[in-house]
Amino acid sequence: MTKQTNTTIHAAVFGAGRIGKIHAGNLARQPGVQLKYVVDVHAPSAAALAQEHGAKVSDIDGALGDPEINAVIIGTSTDTHAELIIKAAAAGKAIFCEKPVDLTLERARACADAVKRAGVTAMIGFQRRYDPTFSALHARLERGEIGTPEMLVVTSRDPGAPPVSYIKSSGGIFKDMLIHDFDIFRWILDDEAISVHATGSCLSDPAIEEAGDIDSTAVTIRTRRGRLCQINTARRAAYGYDQRFEVLGSLGMLQAGNVRPTEVVAYSKTAQSCDVPEPFFLERYRAAYAAEMAHFADAIIHGTPVRTTVEDGLKALVLADAATRSWRENRIITLD
Amino acid sequence: MTKQTNTTIHAAVFGAGRIGKIHAGNLARQPGVQLKYVVDVHAPSAAALAQEHGAKVSDIDGALGDPEINAVIIGTSTDTHAELIIKAAAAGKAIFCEKPVDLTLERARACADAVKRAGVTAMIGFQRRYDPTFSALHARLERGEIGTPEMLVVTSRDPGAPPVSYIKSSGGIFKDMLIHDFDIFRWILDDEAISVHATGSCLSDPAIEEAGDIDSTAVTIRTRRGRLCQINTARRAAYGYDQRFEVLGSLGMLQAGNVRPTEVVAYSKTAQSCDVPEPFFLERYRAAYAAEMAHFADAIIHGTPVRTTVEDGLKALVLADAATRSWRENRIITLD
Amino acid sequence: MTKQTNTTIHAAVFGAGRIGKIHAGNLARQPGVQLKYVVDVHAPSAAALAQEHGAKVSDIDGALGDPEINAVIIGTSTDTHAELIIKAAAAGKAIFCEKPVDLTLERARACADAVKRAGVTAMIGFQRRYDPTFSALHARLERGEIGTPEMLVVTSRDPGAPPVSYIKSSGGIFKDMLIHDFDIFRWILDDEAISVHATGSCLSDPAIEEAGDIDSTAVTIRTRRGRLCQINTARRAAYGYDQRFEVLGSLGMLQAGNVRPTEVVAYSKTAQSCDVPEPFFLERYRAAYAAEMAHFADAIIHGTPVRTTVEDGLKALVLADAATRSWRENRIITLD
Amino acid sequence: MTKQTNTTIHAAVFGAGRIGKIHAGNLARQPGVQLKYVVDVHAPSAAALAQEHGAKVSDIDGALGDPEINAVIIGTSTDTHAELIIKAAAAGKAIFCEKPVDLTLERARACADAVKRAGVTAMIGFQRRYDPTFSALHARLERGEIGTPEMLVVTSRDPGAPPVSYIKSSGGIFKDMLIHDFDIFRWILDDEAISVHATGSCLSDPAIEEAGDIDSTAVTIRTRRGRLCQINTARRAAYGYDQRFEVLGSLGMLQAGNVRPTEVVAYSKTAQSCDVPEPFFLERYRAAYAAEMAHFADAIIHGTPVRTTVEDGLKALVLADAATRSWRENRIITLD
Repeated sequence: MTKQTNTTIHAAVFGAGRIGKIHAGNLARQPGVQLKYVVDVHAPSAAALAQEHGAKVSDIDGALGDPEINAVIIGTSTDTHAELIIKAAAAGKAIFCEKPVDLTLERARACADAVKRAGVTAMIGFQRRYDPTFSALHARLERGEIGTPEMLVVTSRDPGAPPVSYIKSSGGIFKDMLIHDFDIFRWILDDEAISVHATGSCLSDPAIEEAGDIDSTAVTIRTRRGRLCQINTARRAAYGYDQRFEVLGSLGMLQAGNVRPTEVVAYSKTAQSCDVPEPFFLERYRAAYAAEMAHFADAIIHGTPVRTTVEDGLKALVLADAATRSWRENRIITLD
Repeated sequence: MTKQTNTTIHAAVFGAGRIGKIHAGNLARQPGVQLKYVVDVHAPSAAALAQEHGAKVSDIDGALGDPEINAVIIGTSTDTHAELIIKAAAAGKAIFCEKPVDLTLERARACADAVKRAGVTAMIGFQRRYDPTFSALHARLERGEIGTPEMLVVTSRDPGAPPVSYIKSSGGIFKDMLIHDFDIFRWILDDEAISVHATGSCLSDPAIEEAGDIDSTAVTIRTRRGRLCQINTARRAAYGYDQRFEVLGSLGMLQAGNVRPTEVVAYSKTAQSCDVPEPFFLERYRAAYAAEMAHFADAIIHGTPVRTTVEDGLKALVLADAATRSWRENRIITLD
Repeated sequence: MTKQTNTTIHAAVFGAGRIGKIHAGNLARQPGVQLKYVVDVHAPSAAALAQEHGAKVSDIDGALGDPEINAVIIGTSTDTHAELIIKAAAAGKAIFCEKPVDLTLERARACADAVKRAGVTAMIGFQRRYDPTFSALHARLERGEIGTPEMLVVTSRDPGAPPVSYIKSSGGIFKDMLIHDFDIFRWILDDEAISVHATGSCLSDPAIEEAGDIDSTAVTIRTRRGRLCQINTARRAAYGYDQRFEVLGSLGMLQAGNVRPTEVVAYSKTAQSCDVPEPFFLERYRAAYAAEMAHFADAIIHGTPVRTTVEDGLKALVLADAATRSWRENRIITLD
Repeated sequence: MTKQTNTTIHAAVFGAGRIGKIHAGNLARQPGVQLKYVVDVHAPSAAALAQEHGAKVSDIDGALGDPEINAVIIGTSTDTHAELIIKAAAAGKAIFCEKPVDLTLERARACADAVKRAGVTAMIGFQRRYDPTFSALHARLERGEIGTPEMLVVTSRDPGAPPVSYIKSSGGIFKDMLIHDFDIFRWILDDEAISVHATGSCLSDPAIEEAGDIDSTAVTIRTRRGRLCQINTARRAAYGYDQRFEVLGSLGMLQAGNVRPTEVVAYSKTAQSCDVPEPFFLERYRAAYAAEMAHFADAIIHGTPVRTTVEDGLKALVLADAATRSWRENRIITLD
């Protein structure tokens, strides 16, 4: 809440849409942060977000060319991520980029290389790792509370499918939606995948199938040490946004459950009931979005490593790519 | 399940109504038990129950006069309990009697004296003490898991009021319904009551008020050591039979929750829901009724003391009587 | 998040302690609000809070004498509330005052009269009415989901007692702690109390008893229409801050449960467990504190009535006063 | 509870071990049932069980040759099931046989053919379908409460592995343990499997791996209509016997949760906790075992079809066989 007087971060925000606004607001709330530029191809959006934070509207070169700028937030459309990451890295800026890094492994690798070469702080927006429930679970896992992790079951369901126009350019459900779940897998089981099996169906809307995609998936990953992971996803869960996972360990189990808007319990003649989960990601991960931006600011100010790197983004994409191939080719994909 | 060959208990059952049948069935299932007589003023009921268990129909003197009979179950109407207890005690039989001992303190005391004098095993049907949930809680309390008990909150609600004809001869809600809750208070807080405050209302059916009774009560008991107990009851809970209590102790809390028929959880567009509690006492306390009869048979066979004595029945009645006076006279009743 | 350009509220904050800082921060976050003055007898606290919000340090007369100031937040010690309310009302300022209005009925009444006479917006900080869980429950109750409310059971326990020095000047547990619960009673049962019975004990720390107070209470309230309320409180719940209530209605029940920091569930060899409740009021009612200040700002800007008036503060105090007398004099207090 | 006088079922029990005793006891409790023979290669076990139920010890031919016998319970070791089914069918007896029918598809098919040819009532002990929670879920699913089922997630974990000697002759984890889960899949998704993918690991005890088996599996099944099923199992869950499944449908979700021994909830300084699930199948499925035997008796007496046929046993085995091959050969198995 308290702002320090010596501002140390001057940021430029690329993308003034829904997620850009969330990130901009969260970053602006950190002590020592000044939003200086907003960049968006849609001028009115850029202007509105800039005004809200006392920033100026600029363009890519203007923002990256200002030596005072030491941090950028990339919340633009996916196809622009790679170029912006590479340019920002070359300009020596700290980078926060929304997931996914890119839809192709090649360009995602180029991004990872670019930030490595530049030696800049670069973070991918896998916000779930910053969620209070998920991160508390991870901490308890690391403390050995359930021994060695052996099996992970991830349930990840959206309340409804996005427009088909979005789906067409999304890279498919595995890269668009499960990318988060693949990151959870890597984070929780802490081991390398050696095989991926994925299957799926289109059960909610034939238009998704016509667009070459599916809305329901079942993925199985096996790791080097024999740990197992099952992920089930759906684009449409009638009861809301369902975000759970559970880890079976040698000594017990840890579950991360849904978050509900209120703790009201009602009893009628026929049922005892409580709220359905938070409706979607903006509500469900509100705290996580705030925490990841605090983490980004901290990393810049203190020069500490970030917890979700471009490398992590790349590795999740490798799994999403393998799952896509497994589904399309109806075979088990072996990774090395 | 296994029946031993040398039968050691020959029992007579008084009362072939709903609760008499439950007790008879549960006692008959114990190893070494033979139901020999069924006694009921309603001949067809007696005959049916007798036939079910290979017993004979008899009358009070016939059953108590048979020297082979060493145990009786009293499940008749409340106004006959005292006489049967006193006669059975005089005849040297082990006694299981449904609650309450009697509606008057005087006669209940006479019963307690009679069984004491006779030295017979005599047990009152406070079945809740034998419920798996309640008795597990009590055991954990006794092991000191939450330190010293300080406060008890009892929620005890029926799914609907009995017929007004029943209410008229019930002795009033405190002696009829809360008698169980007063016993829970004594068992859990393990201290002597020094004051009782009770109030109540008739909110569901004016006929109950016309019968001189109420359907909703709020009782507070204070103990010698300053422990507090609040009991809230209602004759009508739209969602079923609500039987909960919680104990606050110096180191934590223990709650006894409701039991549900199934563990199905349903998610709809608007709610996450599970079953309402078991509908009423026969379902909710099925295991408790079986366990109390096993306890009774054990006590007879091994000559061990029973956990719910006629003295306990008398002491719960003292509290019910104090609560009744507190409500009627609108004052705090001091006990000594 | 968005701040409008035409600032319409210029506020002075009285009291720069823990709760004053919370309120100041929450008010400053509302659109159209400018904190202009901070007033506190402890100069460094005033200076720090003023600096945080770009405000100036002032004194009572300076702040109230500035015609630009149109709103004041009173977060000072209880004994100064009445004087500040009366002065601020006379100066025509909108008032937000922490509970309780005052420890005496006489001065609380004078405050209610003063704000009425002045016609100013005046709000008491019963933040629980603004809590997401509690207010959702209230809305469902008002929509008739459980029919007519008949019984309310309030469980309200602090994680630990405040210092005895605080207790000595607190006005006693009923005015200091249960004042919130009495307001919940009035809000939920929506009826006038006609009798109050309270008892209590000192079970955690003899120093509290020496200070003339208790740490555990059991209160029963009866309303004009025969509705019943039981409140149980404790200064010390080993497992944290326990804030629950449940309303039995003619058609069902609504419960407001505790809020937990995370939704992690752990399974070990011996137990399935989840988090204990949020540790104390700052965490538990974080959203409520923000929402009540948004409500205050809204009421000023739109000239709409507040939901928690000084009159509500007075009426809760009448109940706290009755409970105090009931406990001290060991009798039922009749209200008219 | 009530026994009718005209006994209509005269039963022979094959196998007097743990599960045979359960079935014998449950069948004997049905009205109109008389256990006439007990057959077991271990004479003392046969004698003990026979005595308990007033039955006689006999041998296979003796029991099957008695024309009064109209029902048999097969609770012997798996390798004897097929022969007993075929003989009993030929003798025209109603058959209840523990799962699995056999470990080979060939013999299981021969059994299905034999009972079909003989036209006898023949039931496989998939007791889970008779569990109160599972069957309530199934009934709600059939009533269309969640629309069309789309995805099933089954969690099925034992508290600990059986002895390696048992594992060696068990047919492997898929036929021994997951056979139940494959039946749940068929029952709940109500569609034909078209592909099976299974993988697994040995994570708890190297001796299991040496015996050629695994202790942890992850199975995915796809159906003709595109429905998806994921099954995760483990031989060792430190917290007990974990038996859950959930069905996502087009309109919502239904979950079947674990059953706990008691409803005690405990609050300590660090956690709110409840009981772990029932320890193992005898406790968890106690009601299911009783209900399936009542169903068997009903089917015989009324000539109605059984809900879990030998054909069901065969079809579950087809899936278990496919899963075994998928795991061993590391490929997706297509079914037709």
